[in-house]
Amino acid sequence: MNKNENEFIPKWNNEKPLEGTYRSILKWGDPNEFKHPNIKLYKLMKEKFKMTDEDFKQPKNLGLEKVEYDIPIKLTDENIQVFKDIVGEENVKTDNYTRLKVSYGKTMLDLLRLRKGIVENVPDIVLYPKDKYDVKKIVEYCNEEKIPIYVFGGGSTVTRGMECVKGGILLYMKAHMNKVLRFNEINQTITVEPGISGPVLEKNLNNAESLFNAKRAYTCGHFPQSFEYSSVGGWVVTRGAGQNSTYFGKIEDLVMCQEYVTPAGIIKTKEYPATATGPDIDRIMMGSEGCFGVLVSVTLKVFRYMPENQTRFSYIFKNWEDARNAAREIMQGQFGLPSVFRLSDPEETDIALKLYGVEGTKIDNIMSLKGYKPMERCLLLGLNDGDKDFTKLVKKKIYKVCKKYGAMYTTGVVTKGWEKGRFKDPYMREDLQDFGIMIDTLECSVSWENMQYVYEGVRKYCKSRPNTICMTHISHFYPQGANLYFIFIAKMDTIKEYLDYQYGILDNIQKYGAAMSHHHGIGKMTAPWLEAQIGKNEMKVFKVLKQYFDSNNIMNPGGTLGLDLKEKEKRNLLRDF
Amino acid sequence: MNKNENEFIPKWNNEKPLEGTYRSILKWGDPNEFKHPNIKLYKLMKEKFKMTDEDFKQPKNLGLEKVEYDIPIKLTDENIQVFKDIVGEENVKTDNYTRLKVSYGKTMLDLLRLRKGIVENVPDIVLYPKDKYDVKKIVEYCNEEKIPIYVFGGGSTVTRGMECVKGGILLYMKAHMNKVLRFNEINQTITVEPGISGPVLEKNLNNAESLFNAKRAYTCGHFPQSFEYSSVGGWVVTRGAGQNSTYFGKIEDLVMCQEYVTPAGIIKTKEYPATATGPDIDRIMMGSEGCFGVLVSVTLKVFRYMPENQTRFSYIFKNWEDARNAAREIMQGQFGLPSVFRLSDPEETDIALKLYGVEGTKIDNIMSLKGYKPMERCLLLGLNDGDKDFTKLVKKKIYKVCKKYGAMYTTGVVTKGWEKGRFKDPYMREDLQDFGIMIDTLECSVSWENMQYVYEGVRKYCKSRPNTICMTHISHFYPQGANLYFIFIAKMDTIKEYLDYQYGILDNIQKYGAAMSHHHGIGKMTAPWLEAQIGKNEMKVFKVLKQYFDSNNIMNPGGTLGLDLKEKEKRNLLRDF
Repeated sequence: MNKNENEFIPKWNNEKPLEGTYRSILKWGDPNEFKHPNIKLYKLMKEKFKMTDEDFKQPKNLGLEKVEYDIPIKLTDENIQVFKDIVGEENVKTDNYTRLKVSYGKTMLDLLRLRKGIVENVPDIVLYPKDKYDVKKIVEYCNEEKIPIYVFGGGSTVTRGMECVKGGILLYMKAHMNKVLRFNEINQTITVEPGISGPVLEKNLNNAESLFNAKRAYTCGHFPQSFEYSSVGGWVVTRGAGQNSTYFGKIEDLVMCQEYVTPAGIIKTKEYPATATGPDIDRIMMGSEGCFGVLVSVTLKVFRYMPENQTRFSYIFKNWEDARNAAREIMQGQFGLPSVFRLSDPEETDIALKLYGVEGTKIDNIMSLKGYKPMERCLLLGLNDGDKDFTKLVKKKIYKVCKKYGAMYTTGVVTKGWEKGRFKDPYMREDLQDFGIMIDTLECSVSWENMQYVYEGVRKYCKSRPNTICMTHISHFYPQGANLYFIFIAKMDTIKEYLDYQYGILDNIQKYGAAMSHHHGIGKMTAPWLEAQIGKNEMKVFKVLKQYFDSNNIMNPGGTLGLDLKEKEKRNLLRDF
Repeated sequence: MNKNENEFIPKWNNEKPLEGTYRSILKWGDPNEFKHPNIKLYKLMKEKFKMTDEDFKQPKNLGLEKVEYDIPIKLTDENIQVFKDIVGEENVKTDNYTRLKVSYGKTMLDLLRLRKGIVENVPDIVLYPKDKYDVKKIVEYCNEEKIPIYVFGGGSTVTRGMECVKGGILLYMKAHMNKVLRFNEINQTITVEPGISGPVLEKNLNNAESLFNAKRAYTCGHFPQSFEYSSVGGWVVTRGAGQNSTYFGKIEDLVMCQEYVTPAGIIKTKEYPATATGPDIDRIMMGSEGCFGVLVSVTLKVFRYMPENQTRFSYIFKNWEDARNAAREIMQGQFGLPSVFRLSDPEETDIALKLYGVEGTKIDNIMSLKGYKPMERCLLLGLNDGDKDFTKLVKKKIYKVCKKYGAMYTTGVVTKGWEKGRFKDPYMREDLQDFGIMIDTLECSVSWENMQYVYEGVRKYCKSRPNTICMTHISHFYPQGANLYFIFIAKMDTIKEYLDYQYGILDNIQKYGAAMSHHHGIGKMTAPWLEAQIGKNEMKVFKVLKQYFDSNNIMNPGGTLGLDLKEKEKRNLLRDF
């Protein structure tokens, strides 16, 4: 019951999508799980987007229709028989629903297309390989026959990573290639197949004592927002980062060695802590995003699982500049790094305080009186991982720096609140889109020196659109810079309007000199910007490697990393809908 | 005066080598500086190598002769004129001495050849490029004319890194390309030309307040044993590591971005803290050891210079197993990492205690009584860098783990002793070789799981040779493994005897599954072993990159990284003398 009986609340969709529908594909996560906007967010949206209760009475484009399309399978019966011989008949799927379910990811454009029943890039067939030997046979055969191969891990791409632009086959790795191959407590490493999901990996490690007869429990330390529905393979090939990466490192820092099946043969690295034996092959394969070969196993570093040692903190700063400077000083202080570290700009802080119910309360008044004013103040939150004395020390040191920059300590409760929602927020995308509201995120990597310039430049573009929320935060910190993350929310009526705005943001990220991605990867979405960021000669290096590994361009073809984009095609990828 | 007047002490060579002599080239470091073996080491050598005072009366092969050889310059006058036009007449050298001085490094084989006047691989001419624009013109011209290019940084290679096997030109980077291009206090980075030496870089950073108007002093944190005579360029292209790398990281961890001039054009990366924009180009260029192009600038992370915070420690363990386990537990404890961390095996510990005069003293007796027995006990030493409270914490935590494994605390004095000699020991090579004693080092990278297997296997081979000292230590530690380092000292009469033994060690490093190098690089010396370590397909990746960057094979040709070695040539590189 609402406090105010007359207050209208939209009927957020709370039903498990029917099997076979577009909605069952586009919905995030568990079909039975939902996270709806609370009343405060609802009011905020009405206010910001100039919407009324009326606008929230009739949801649209729910995608409730059954999947239906007519894209013929181009593979021959002989082709398909070969695949059946390799993986077994039960591991070959050709029905429309299965094909579509794995052809898109969770890029906003994917969801928009699904809502409108726009089906354009589906694989001819879907295969569930049993092991790396299956993959080897498949890749060899596809290379002979020039059949495109796409690889589907968790399906949580936000860059159109594995979209099957050229048809062909899709390898669905979650079905069978999801196993722990070896746990090595001496080295503190675990070797897994790429289709294993984040939670299954983590569960294995947390229960290492019973499962592997280990002396203690472990953690992978890698928790992207998509954690629950992402795969280890996806983390690795896109160069992902978890929300705790400031302490645990990006996936590049966690990968010890890997094995890939490429059209040019097997590439397999070995488990050494560090080497000086020529260029780093692991770093050549990571970031290849399925364009060089299929990842079939990876060995990751693991850490002791010690949640009992975690310490939490949050601070409110008077302004963005003080907050940024404090964050930089913490990063450069050499007393150890926090694990989660996240600094919200004034707009994101304002919305967060609204949603958490702080606005208008006594605490809010006290904050304002003390000089922590709405639309100026900034929230910093985080937690520390590691040894007990270490996490205590880091917390103490952070306190000292924050105080120096005039911050108010707002306890670890705020962090706990953030933790609760950390993997659940994506569920809200569906509710918003049911009423034509887009929410999307773009991120980039920036040095400290360039941080404010990029921040101001990109936000200026974002805010040039009226009635648009643009929450910005800095996360994944380093002594030399950080990840700058933009979340925009706006009422938009067409896919074209959405894309124009998104492309404008990407243009501006590039214009102000940030790297196009810190951890989302490039995929097909950002690919048209890649060459301008890294340079023509540098792009040629990627193309040379591509030509070597995959001379027939069967691996994730159709624009990934911009490797096979001709100049005129670049704008084609950015087509209007 | 000696205590015992009758005691014979060799007349160690204490003279600055005459100009123009082979000795002036082979001698380590400052021509006026020496570090002679002390009486204890002298006695030890006599005992271990079954030598007598008589053997130390007549030094041999001192290389006192003036450099003289007749290897004609193959370049045409026109070629040379072009180079003069590019760099200026004063920056082109063609005399015999200059050519030889830069054609070898400090590989033991180089020193042995110089002592015997064996001159075989010299560049035709030596150029001192003024800046990257000179380099660009030189590379373009050499690529047209197919003239080999070798690059000389500090000249401290121990892998025959830049040996001018194919003649051609040598770029001497120390002369002019030794400048700081930019110091960036906000990002905590410094951009330098590759010819800058370790000490000059460090001096710049330590004096950042006066030189760059910085708020505080900084350090690069990278101190290889060759520090005083190494160049930043050498660190980067070989993937080096400093002795403090356990805290500060390997050079790969310190490099932010780089610029290379390659025959295929400029490769330039940008200053981002981390990215997910395709394969990592920085890690493709690092480790290329001069085979892809010429490094012309590099941006390194820097750290606060806080020597006042350093804490030191040392421990004696009862045995190798306890010591190794304690070291691993420290690495995996997640309380922060020490900076220098070095664990000596029983043989190295025994010699160290002899040399430090501990053997036979009261302390020695007490140690033995307590169970820390000669040829069983192991010495661990180290120091911590960082914030004051952090270094205190790490020291405290290390104490706790060491006590758990039964170690005796032997104070920070031992570390201070080690620090005194850390850059000076190479001076002793000359004294030893004057009497036919070889001292050489080989190192490899090993996971914790494989550590004891490699240790035993390689040492078994080393010790199969009678009268041979093989000191072994572990340094450059990681949670997943470490660098295993072998120092052998032996009386050997011929270069062939030396090489046979060295090749045997390399064979065994490979046989027992270690990586061929953790930080020395591969160069031409270890190259014949590289493919077997990394694999045929992996080697092909290097060759594909080589073909792209340097299709005419003008960059450091003649066996570096094994890129241009045909099967039958492999053994040629390993020729007998």
